[in-house]
Amino acid sequence: MTFEVLILGNSGAVQAHGRHQSSQLLKIDNYRFLIDCGEGTQDRLKARNVNTNKIKHIFISHLHGDHFLGLFGLISTLSMMGREKSLTVFGPRGIKEIIQIQLKYSNSWLNFPLNIIELKTGKHCIFEDNRIEIYNFPLDHGIECHGFLFKEKQRPNRIQKEKISVTLDFGQIRALKQGEDVTLPNGTVLKNKDYTIPSPDAVSYAYCSDTSYNEDMVDYIKKVNILYHESTFLAIDKEKALKTNHSTTQQAATIAQKAEVGKLLLGHYSARYVKEIDFENEAREIFANSWATIEGKI
Amino acid sequence: MTFEVLILGNSGAVQAHGRHQSSQLLKIDNYRFLIDCGEGTQDRLKARNVNTNKIKHIFISHLHGDHFLGLFGLISTLSMMGREKSLTVFGPRGIKEIIQIQLKYSNSWLNFPLNIIELKTGKHCIFEDNRIEIYNFPLDHGIECHGFLFKEKQRPNRIQKEKISVTLDFGQIRALKQGEDVTLPNGTVLKNKDYTIPSPDAVSYAYCSDTSYNEDMVDYIKKVNILYHESTFLAIDKEKALKTNHSTTQQAATIAQKAEVGKLLLGHYSARYVKEIDFENEAREIFANSWATIEGKI
Repeated sequence: MTFEVLILGNSGAVQAHGRHQSSQLLKIDNYRFLIDCGEGTQDRLKARNVNTNKIKHIFISHLHGDHFLGLFGLISTLSMMGREKSLTVFGPRGIKEIIQIQLKYSNSWLNFPLNIIELKTGKHCIFEDNRIEIYNFPLDHGIECHGFLFKEKQRPNRIQKEKISVTLDFGQIRALKQGEDVTLPNGTVLKNKDYTIPSPDAVSYAYCSDTSYNEDMVDYIKKVNILYHESTFLAIDKEKALKTNHSTTQQAATIAQKAEVGKLLLGHYSARYVKEIDFENEAREIFANSWATIEGKI
Repeated sequence: MTFEVLILGNSGAVQAHGRHQSSQLLKIDNYRFLIDCGEGTQDRLKARNVNTNKIKHIFISHLHGDHFLGLFGLISTLSMMGREKSLTVFGPRGIKEIIQIQLKYSNSWLNFPLNIIELKTGKHCIFEDNRIEIYNFPLDHGIECHGFLFKEKQRPNRIQKEKISVTLDFGQIRALKQGEDVTLPNGTVLKNKDYTIPSPDAVSYAYCSDTSYNEDMVDYIKKVNILYHESTFLAIDKEKALKTNHSTTQQAATIAQKAEVGKLLLGHYSARYVKEIDFENEAREIFANSWATIEGKI
């Protein structure tokens, strides 16, 4: 099973030191979720050989330029390149008006259906199918700003076909997958534990950028496998973080610790810092499994 | 005197082969005029070490994304970097609404005065001071689209001070600069030709992207020193040019020839072509002083 995060951009608002504005591609199985879309994201997708046809959903956290200014260009290019598959964009109130006004004045139309869903504040399930569910939840950034939680549903047990010598009907197969024992017409009982193995644990990912330190979010992201939490500043600059509605490494690590997540990814680095490793070292003092993201890496 | 064009982007709408969306920086003396601003223009300005503080005027030809999607990001970055000098943006109807709606939803304000001037269609003088005048004029692109003409004013003759042994007052100096002879109180006549040399010829630059072949524009750009005329297609694809309101190399060269310009710069190359030199070779069959622009070159 695929479960990867490809970092396309991890800079703060001002690009520097080869880092670019926020965007990342979350891969869970065959899903390709694009999260935020700073200016030039289409270039990074191309440079990383991402098949954009597989992206069906884009999630925009908020309407500061460094998180969405690449969206209209990406949409335009997808259309020019002949995309036909529909695309759904989730984002804050206003995103529809911004896209529509640009379509209007550029006298353009798209060759594919574009669904723009403006999010409600609070926590809501914004997408669900038989494999995955996705929630938005509020971040604390002085402007409407959404975190996103991607939760794979636990898959049923896997049947070990080679151990079953009789032919089963659909109902019996489903019962085994759901963990039940199956009694055959002749009275033989197929004990579930003898004929199935559990599927891998369902995975989850939470994206929190941009936000102040706010413990309210701990409940939303409790025990996720991977948490991306912005760390615009090192701890020494915590006053700047407070003033600009951002977080420090230590604050991100504290949230990770309180939420008991599996792994913490750091990013949204301010241009004032050159080395990503400084973020990692500082966060690890509080939460050992902290990692400073590097663009292009998974 | 400086008179240079720095090509920041010369691709068509779809970026390819290392080429980027339209933007260029025109340098005339101390003026720095940014013409069009495709996505990622701020990156190219940075990569070329352009001092953005010197840019006081931006000209947007039309509202197709590849000509203006970098504008809001550039403006935002200038503000974050502490710009205080005013900036004037000239562009088509709608550009003000697009910028204002993004400022509104990003809950942002700028630290410098931003003047947005929506252009009238037709030919108009849109800027004039004692050194330069700038005009817009209509291009033919199926959407409101402006060409721009930058004309330096002819400077007065330069006085050769070392040849004048008497002290002149302001009126006499101005008369000499304007080409007049000056009669001194004692009856001596200072012959203009003996005491002045002409200043270098005034220069002019015209920008025509994007446009179909249209001879109406010949009058607007007559005898400019340098003409940038889009050549999205090679001649073999002239049907595509017609269909998409663009031009071929041969059409650009024909306009250059009819307008009797000094030099023709080609650009806005479609992604289907790899080599810029093919454009140059083809245009030179009609207009010898044709040059295919290369990004980063002047």
